[in-house]
Amino acid sequence: MSIRVLETEDLKKVLKIGEVIEGVRSVYEAKADGEIIVWPLIYDEFNDGKGSNMDIRSGGIKGDINIHGMKMFNEFPGNHELGIPSHLAYIMVFDSTNGMPLGVVDGAYVTGMRTGSAGAIGADALARKDAKTLMILGAGQQAMFQIAATLTLRPEIEKVWIADPVNQPNAEQFAANCRERLSKEFGINAENTEFKPVTDLKEAVGEADIIITVTPSREPVIKAEWVKPGTHFSCIGSDMEGKEEIDPEIFRGAKVYGDDLSQCIRVGEMEIPLKKGTIRKEELMGEIGQLLKGEIEGRTSDEEITIFDATGISALDLITAKIALEA
Amino acid sequence: MSIRVLETEDLKKVLKIGEVIEGVRSVYEAKADGEIIVWPLIYDEFNDGKGSNMDIRSGGIKGDINIHGMKMFNEFPGNHELGIPSHLAYIMVFDSTNGMPLGVVDGAYVTGMRTGSAGAIGADALARKDAKTLMILGAGQQAMFQIAATLTLRPEIEKVWIADPVNQPNAEQFAANCRERLSKEFGINAENTEFKPVTDLKEAVGEADIIITVTPSREPVIKAEWVKPGTHFSCIGSDMEGKEEIDPEIFRGAKVYGDDLSQCIRVGEMEIPLKKGTIRKEELMGEIGQLLKGEIEGRTSDEEITIFDATGISALDLITAKIALEA
Repeated sequence: MSIRVLETEDLKKVLKIGEVIEGVRSVYEAKADGEIIVWPLIYDEFNDGKGSNMDIRSGGIKGDINIHGMKMFNEFPGNHELGIPSHLAYIMVFDSTNGMPLGVVDGAYVTGMRTGSAGAIGADALARKDAKTLMILGAGQQAMFQIAATLTLRPEIEKVWIADPVNQPNAEQFAANCRERLSKEFGINAENTEFKPVTDLKEAVGEADIIITVTPSREPVIKAEWVKPGTHFSCIGSDMEGKEEIDPEIFRGAKVYGDDLSQCIRVGEMEIPLKKGTIRKEELMGEIGQLLKGEIEGRTSDEEITIFDATGISALDLITAKIALEA
Repeated sequence: MSIRVLETEDLKKVLKIGEVIEGVRSVYEAKADGEIIVWPLIYDEFNDGKGSNMDIRSGGIKGDINIHGMKMFNEFPGNHELGIPSHLAYIMVFDSTNGMPLGVVDGAYVTGMRTGSAGAIGADALARKDAKTLMILGAGQQAMFQIAATLTLRPEIEKVWIADPVNQPNAEQFAANCRERLSKEFGINAENTEFKPVTDLKEAVGEADIIITVTPSREPVIKAEWVKPGTHFSCIGSDMEGKEEIDPEIFRGAKVYGDDLSQCIRVGEMEIPLKKGTIRKEELMGEIGQLLKGEIEGRTSDEEITIFDATGISALDLITAKIALEA
């Protein structure tokens, strides 16, 4: 018996964003069918005075996919000074029909691909059919995955705004390299799409049809009064209590969906609007998997604000690792 | 970054029983020093009608060793019919100073090596200094590891009895091959040791100075009246509620040690004697690590019965995997 291992360089070769999007979609639908297993989260700190910590997220997907496994995630902030990565993640996947290992996969690139797919699936399912402008808030690791996945599902997008409110030169450099990186890293031809750094956030928000947020912010960055009717938000950055990227007022009257509602209520972008009462639990539309399966209503007018709150499901890592291992 | 993977064939080449014994000893001592981390056990069943199940045991070792990780164990009884292994285990180990992966290791051989070392460490620490006869109850996967580790620590043993009460031909074949396998698989020269299959269990028990039990029995196999004064028992097989290999009466007046007392009380060989009242919790001597560190008393006469109850500690898998990965 031999365990297959895929490192980041291997993953870049074998993982196709289109296939990951299909995998993520299948997990969302499996969740709506009650086929996702989530085992208890294990979390601990190393008390090394640098905030080092680890968690193990494990679970499985029943039904046709039928896999289980876990992701070990290590965060060692002190590594930065040593020139080694401070976030280390490894995924092990097993076949749930016979317990045989499918393999071990480096988690960083997988997390990027599946999270980009998540944001894009929400955008594609909920944004106006005629959406032409995408704005990405946050120009870090996650941004390129979000753009690649969204352009895969919505190739007709004409303009992509890149905003980095804490580092303007970063946004400019990111925008300048975007077309070339999409081609090289994802095989996406974006000749007809314009990529622009945001200099005036209010202006860009006011123009955007789709806004995807991928910052670690703990203060709302996007104000409600800047947002035009019909805008769709995919909120990706908030995955921990207290994180917040958009003005809670944006939730008032909006159609709100989550990837895993109970988790979104606890730690997602909707956490604070719910606590503030800007929106009530009873007003939440439901989960993205139900929407994809046509079990709940989506956008019904060009004026509605729609919000997809994605906090991450460990089964997304497993399906993406499986896709890579089978490729 | 590249993850190292060791399969069973690699492990057979790099793992030396003497080094594993030292690793197991260091974990027992670390446990006495409060340096073992045990994270919550995750267990689930697959409801496939065949009893398939999995568990994840995770934790770490602080101090100088400073590693953490997990073992994923899959049990798929139905695999037997398909000609593939029904027990599959994989261990991932990480450096707790920086979160970097040390590697992934197949768990089956590691489990054998560390469990053999455990039984032998108990025997070496507690058996009479002049012990000459070892009896192994159970001639399955575990037996050879127990013999190899015990002969490593006690090379002066003259006779090894092999008992398989449910399969006599197996005991005979095992005994016939023992010397050659020890040489080939463990590099142990046992020219001066005699290996004999047990035909009369009562006789063999009465002669044995050290008895190591490695069966999955749920009924006592060894009767108290067969046991001579001064015998040492390493009870390895009982690791689950209801399992029992030796007569609870043997515990009466014996000096009893565990690898992890709270676990032994719940699921070890001592579970049933404690429930029956043959021994009381207050009479338990303590943990093997305390004994190895000289913090508690061991054998003080040649007439005492000593019992080491080993239920397994997940840190033993981690240290053994680390030794293999560094070799």
